[in-house]
Amino acid sequence: MKIAVLGSGSWGSALSIHFGRNEFDVVQWCREREVSEEINSFRENRTYLPGFKYPERVRATSSVERALEGVEIVFSVIPTQFTASFWRDNKELLHGKSLVCASKGIEIESLKTLSELYGEIFGSLENYYVLSGPTFAREIASGLPAAAVVSNENLERALNIVKLLNTPSFRLYASSDVKGVELGGALKNVIAIATGISDGMGFGNNARAALITRGLHEIKRLGRKLGAREETFYGLSGVGDLVLTCTGDLSRNRQFGISIAKGDRREGNFVVEGVYTVKAVHELSKRLNIEMPISEAVYRIIYDGVEPKEVIRELLSRPVKEESS
Amino acid sequence: MKIAVLGSGSWGSALSIHFGRNEFDVVQWCREREVSEEINSFRENRTYLPGFKYPERVRATSSVERALEGVEIVFSVIPTQFTASFWRDNKELLHGKSLVCASKGIEIESLKTLSELYGEIFGSLENYYVLSGPTFAREIASGLPAAAVVSNENLERALNIVKLLNTPSFRLYASSDVKGVELGGALKNVIAIATGISDGMGFGNNARAALITRGLHEIKRLGRKLGAREETFYGLSGVGDLVLTCTGDLSRNRQFGISIAKGDRREGNFVVEGVYTVKAVHELSKRLNIEMPISEAVYRIIYDGVEPKEVIRELLSRPVKEESS
Repeated sequence: MKIAVLGSGSWGSALSIHFGRNEFDVVQWCREREVSEEINSFRENRTYLPGFKYPERVRATSSVERALEGVEIVFSVIPTQFTASFWRDNKELLHGKSLVCASKGIEIESLKTLSELYGEIFGSLENYYVLSGPTFAREIASGLPAAAVVSNENLERALNIVKLLNTPSFRLYASSDVKGVELGGALKNVIAIATGISDGMGFGNNARAALITRGLHEIKRLGRKLGAREETFYGLSGVGDLVLTCTGDLSRNRQFGISIAKGDRREGNFVVEGVYTVKAVHELSKRLNIEMPISEAVYRIIYDGVEPKEVIRELLSRPVKEESS
Repeated sequence: MKIAVLGSGSWGSALSIHFGRNEFDVVQWCREREVSEEINSFRENRTYLPGFKYPERVRATSSVERALEGVEIVFSVIPTQFTASFWRDNKELLHGKSLVCASKGIEIESLKTLSELYGEIFGSLENYYVLSGPTFAREIASGLPAAAVVSNENLERALNIVKLLNTPSFRLYASSDVKGVELGGALKNVIAIATGISDGMGFGNNARAALITRGLHEIKRLGRKLGAREETFYGLSGVGDLVLTCTGDLSRNRQFGISIAKGDRREGNFVVEGVYTVKAVHELSKRLNIEMPISEAVYRIIYDGVEPKEVIRELLSRPVKEESS
């Protein structure tokens, strides 16, 4: 089977390598011509995923037309803040193809999720799929075992594409909760920053596990208000991705939190997706009137310059209550 | 306020140190006279929690009578397999006191939880509380921040004891799901062994996060059949403790899994609580007819001597399906 992967970052490259190794014919589109040439010449994306050999069955191109030619399934792995404009620019070419979105995050300008933006642009979610779960790119590129969820609003369609894309090393589950799957992948970044701050302050494993759990509680409450199903947040795209991002050393959002705790707030760090999500969550929780103490604490540390220590003291002195409330 | 802590292991000692530091008067009962003398003489439990200074307000004794004198709240932190016999032997002394059980696990002989055994011995769960959550003893003893749940079948009573025991560094939440809180703490050990095996085989963070998530799914299904509420497994005593045990280096169950993956199955290792729980879960899932592929894989590796690699291959080749099914 032939697929296209749009995007030349580490995740798009890992997916290209994975599917190429599993006997798919893959065309990877790279915005930068030099990157596509590098992949074709050296069988390696030395710029964004160095150290991993591309299999024969992958070729790269910087032409969207050529990438999408004769392809029915397209993976969209464009940086979140640029995804909608890319879809708009290539609407005709993408029309009628199954699009599997593997980018995570909320568009900060519109406060919309990627499925909402896709629906606006294409008029229907029939061909829209979202892939999400605990997947560090480098591990997928290495062929290590992993599992994730693919969701379409119609469960039958989700199951069908899962059957096409499932491989022994990357196990896929089907879901019909598009909103829940995409929100889990976006919102976890806020909690990853929070646990990074906690780790950076030397608070230990107990505090980290508590932040993950209470963070999951916040994510779920916001998600429900946004139309997601609660159970999805307890699956691979919810708690699975949350745990990975909050405990794995490869997580950039967590690393960013650690550097904040160590007093480094300079601009150079402000590129992780979670920094946008923190702001989006702040706006959404205000608008929907949802109490999200951990996310709000991260917002105040990043955007109001409040000292982490002070925020933590406030968090710990909140009145006691029932756990599920 | 005066409390008693029954047990001289690392967790009982950490709780004694924590409450002593927070202006409780603590009497810690130690089965071994030498340990109580060590604590009183050196202000340190050099045998089971070396390196942590006892505060003034804790004293140790090897007499149960003296430990319980004039005390209204008792923490029971006896090894799980010996807890019921201890309660039976000291039934008169414990009668009428609030008992907070902080041991985790299922009694392998009876396949019963500790609240079930308490109910049989004392005839009522009115005075029974369970404390559970992500709490490595050494971090609590260090005074690092943590959170956990205290449950009584009556939410008001749970809230009341939480108000008495809550401190800024160890934040407590109330719950009325005794069964759910105790089961989370017991069942997580099976998944911790599974993730240890996965880590020991070098499978990476993605596989670990997937095992935690699918493991949570199994725990929840068994728990519901045993009378627990689903939501409890998504709280501190469920996913919180699971994440801690499956990702923290201080977890003995996880370490045990790692040593299995490295080919070390000798008896010396067979002391972790999870080894009993694996067997109990195997029996319970058969009896209740619940599919638990991860727990069953761990059972076959430990008790049938099957090679981890073979079991993993089977796990990954299961048919694709909906995530929530």
